[in-house]
Amino acid sequence: MSGVASPLGFRAAATACGIRPSGPDLALIAADRGCSAAAVFTANRAQAAPVVVSREHVADGTARAVLVNAGCANAGTGEQGLRDAREMAALAAEQLGCQPGEIIVASTGVIGIELPMERIRAGIVRLARSLSRDGGAEAARAILTTDTHPKEVVVEFPLDGRTARVGAMAKGAGMIAPRLATMLAFFTTDAAVSPHLLRQSLREAVGASLNRITVDGDTSTNDMAVVLASGSLPARAILTEGHDLHAFRGALGEAAQRIAAMLIRDAEGATRVAEVRVEGARSELDADRIARTVAESPLVKTAIHGGDPNWGRVLAAVGRADVELDIGGLDLFLGDVWVAEGGRARAYDEGLARRAMLEDPIRIRVRLHDGQAVGSMWTCDLSGGYVEINAHYRS
Amino acid sequence: MSGVASPLGFRAAATACGIRPSGPDLALIAADRGCSAAAVFTANRAQAAPVVVSREHVADGTARAVLVNAGCANAGTGEQGLRDAREMAALAAEQLGCQPGEIIVASTGVIGIELPMERIRAGIVRLARSLSRDGGAEAARAILTTDTHPKEVVVEFPLDGRTARVGAMAKGAGMIAPRLATMLAFFTTDAAVSPHLLRQSLREAVGASLNRITVDGDTSTNDMAVVLASGSLPARAILTEGHDLHAFRGALGEAAQRIAAMLIRDAEGATRVAEVRVEGARSELDADRIARTVAESPLVKTAIHGGDPNWGRVLAAVGRADVELDIGGLDLFLGDVWVAEGGRARAYDEGLARRAMLEDPIRIRVRLHDGQAVGSMWTCDLSGGYVEINAHYRS
Repeated sequence: MSGVASPLGFRAAATACGIRPSGPDLALIAADRGCSAAAVFTANRAQAAPVVVSREHVADGTARAVLVNAGCANAGTGEQGLRDAREMAALAAEQLGCQPGEIIVASTGVIGIELPMERIRAGIVRLARSLSRDGGAEAARAILTTDTHPKEVVVEFPLDGRTARVGAMAKGAGMIAPRLATMLAFFTTDAAVSPHLLRQSLREAVGASLNRITVDGDTSTNDMAVVLASGSLPARAILTEGHDLHAFRGALGEAAQRIAAMLIRDAEGATRVAEVRVEGARSELDADRIARTVAESPLVKTAIHGGDPNWGRVLAAVGRADVELDIGGLDLFLGDVWVAEGGRARAYDEGLARRAMLEDPIRIRVRLHDGQAVGSMWTCDLSGGYVEINAHYRS
Repeated sequence: MSGVASPLGFRAAATACGIRPSGPDLALIAADRGCSAAAVFTANRAQAAPVVVSREHVADGTARAVLVNAGCANAGTGEQGLRDAREMAALAAEQLGCQPGEIIVASTGVIGIELPMERIRAGIVRLARSLSRDGGAEAARAILTTDTHPKEVVVEFPLDGRTARVGAMAKGAGMIAPRLATMLAFFTTDAAVSPHLLRQSLREAVGASLNRITVDGDTSTNDMAVVLASGSLPARAILTEGHDLHAFRGALGEAAQRIAAMLIRDAEGATRVAEVRVEGARSELDADRIARTVAESPLVKTAIHGGDPNWGRVLAAVGRADVELDIGGLDLFLGDVWVAEGGRARAYDEGLARRAMLEDPIRIRVRLHDGQAVGSMWTCDLSGGYVEINAHYRS
C-alpha cells in the first residue's frame, strides 16, 4: 500500500489503454463509499474540459472517485471535450455503482486533440476490475508525462487514539507534456472531515505549498488539486475547529509540502533548487509578488544554474516586481552571506557567496524595511535541459 | 560618418580606458552647441546612479552631450555611485565648456561595483580630444556588452527643402553584461525641435518599438533612450504640430523600429524572431498584456526555438494573462494558418503550420472578439545559447 491507496477506504488501479504510445495512461482512485471532497483548480482562463466538469462535480462537497488520464489534456476541445469528460465520469460511475456527479475527472497531455474515447471506455472497465489497496504506485506512474519518477507521499497523524493517514500522488509542475505543463495532485485521507473544513484545509495546504513553486510561470489549463476524505477509520469525525482539525491540517500541509518539494526537484531540466524568501514587505501580497518575480526571472534562474552569486539580478527583479518599495532600504542575502545593504553592494567574501550558491536548497533572502509581511517561493534553475525538453520533445 | 554623428552638429568618440579588460569602453556623443533633448528611463524601481543623474539633467529639455561607459553599470552603488555619475558629467562638461547639467551619463555592465574613476577621468580627456564626425561607429562599438555586433541607423527626412537626419546607436535589450541586461539607445537629429515636441516624439517612437521587444522580461536598472536635436541644419525649427513634425516623427519612429529589430535579432542566444499580434481586445492595455504574456512565456519561446507549431502553449499563455476575456471566442493563427477557432482546435494542415514556424519573422496572431483594440510584441526564441551565456558568462 502506498500513496493515495494507503488511507483506509481507498483502492487504486492503472491501465495502459493506448492514449499514448506506451505505458500506463489511465488511473482510478476509488473510495469504497461516498467521501467528502474538495478541490482547487487552475486560475488559467483557458480551462480544460475536465476542469469545468470536475468543478461542477465537486461543488456539493462530495465525491466517490478520481479518474485521471495522461497523453491527452482534453483542452482546446470545445463542446466535444465536455461531452467526453462527462462520459468518462458516467462510465466510471457505472462501474462503481454511483452517480456521474460523484466522479472527478482529470487529464494531462497534448492540448487540442480529442480523447480516444473507444480506448478509454475499454480501459475504464479494466480499471474498475483491478482496483486494489496495492494500486497506488501503479496509479502514480500512470499520470506522469515528462516527470522522471512517480511522486507519492503518506503522512500519519493521531486521531481519536488511532493513526489516521493522508496519502497523496502528483505529477509535475512545469513537467510538460509535449504541449503543456500540468500540475495534478490528489490527496486522500481516512479521517472523516466535513466538506467545509476539507475545502478550507486544502486551500490552506495548497497556498503554502503547490502555489509556492514555480518552474516557468506557465500555468496549465488543466491544473487541479483534489482531496477525498473516506472516513473509513473508526474515529470521531472532524466537524469543528479544534485539536483533531489541527492534526489533520498539519498532516495535509506536510503531504502537500513534500509533494511540492518533489515537483520542484523533478522540474524539467532542473539541477538546482532555490527558496526565495521576502521579509519586511508592506503586505503579504507584495511579499508574494516580489518573491514570484525573483523566482521566475530567467536571469536569476540562469544564475542559479551557473552557481553564480549574481545578486544584481535579484536586485533588478525586485525593482521590476510592480510593488511600491524603498529600494534604498533593501538588504540581500545569499545563504548566510549578506551581499547587499540599503540597495547597494556590501563588502562580502566572494568565496562564501559562491559556496552559498551550491547549497541545497539555495537560499535567496530579500529583506525590506517597509512592513512586517513575509512571502516565499520555491524555484529551480533554468538549464539547457529545460530548453531541450520543451523545444524538441513532441508527441 | 555613421550613426549618431551623421546628423549635422554632432561628433563622437570612443576610448579604451580599462573599465573592462579589453576593448573600447567609454564613448562620448557631443553636440557643437546646446541641443533640445528628451529621454525615457527604465521603469525598474532599482535605478542606477546614471539614471537618477540623467533624469535630473534632462529635466529642463536641453543637453549638450551623452557620456556612456560599458563594463560597469554603476548600479547598486549608493551615494558613491551618485557622486561618481555627477563627477563624470562634470568632467565632460569641463572638457566641452558647458555646464554639468548639460551632460547625460549612461552606464552598462556589472552591477554592484564602483566605477574606476581614476581611469575614467583620464579617458574623458582623451575622448574630448578625439571627437570627430567619423566617431559614430567607434562609439557604437564601445557601448556593447554581449551584443555580437554594433547597432547603428541613419534615417533621412525632408525638412524645409533640405534633407534632415536622425542618427542612432544602441546596445542590447537582454544583451546581458555579466550581471545585468541593459538597453541603451541614443538618437540624434540635426533638425531643430522644441523640447516639448521632442519628448512627445521620443515617447511615441519608443512606445511603438523599444517597448515592444522582450527577450526575457527582465527590465534593467540602467535602461535609457535619449534624443538630442542640434538644429544645425539650416532649416526652419519644428515648434508646432504640422507637416515638419510629422516627417520628423516618421524618421525617429523608423530609426527606433530599426534599432528595435536589430536588438531583438541580436538578443542573447536568439536564433528566431517572432511577432505576437493580438486583435479584438477590449482595450490596448489588455491587448498589450496578452501579447507580452505570450511573448515572454518560456514554453512559447522554447516552441519557437524548436519550430514547433505548438498553439496549445499560446492558448495557455493567453489564458493566464490576467485579462478578462472570452476564451470561447479566441482564434489563433500561426503565419497564415488558422489553427484554433473559438478556443479549440481546427482541422488544419500540420505541414503548413510547421512551415509557418520557420518563417522570418514567425507570426503568431491571437484574435479575440471582445473589442477593437490591437497590440503587438516582438520576441525571440529561448535557446540553449541563452542559458549558456547567462549561466556561465561572468566578468
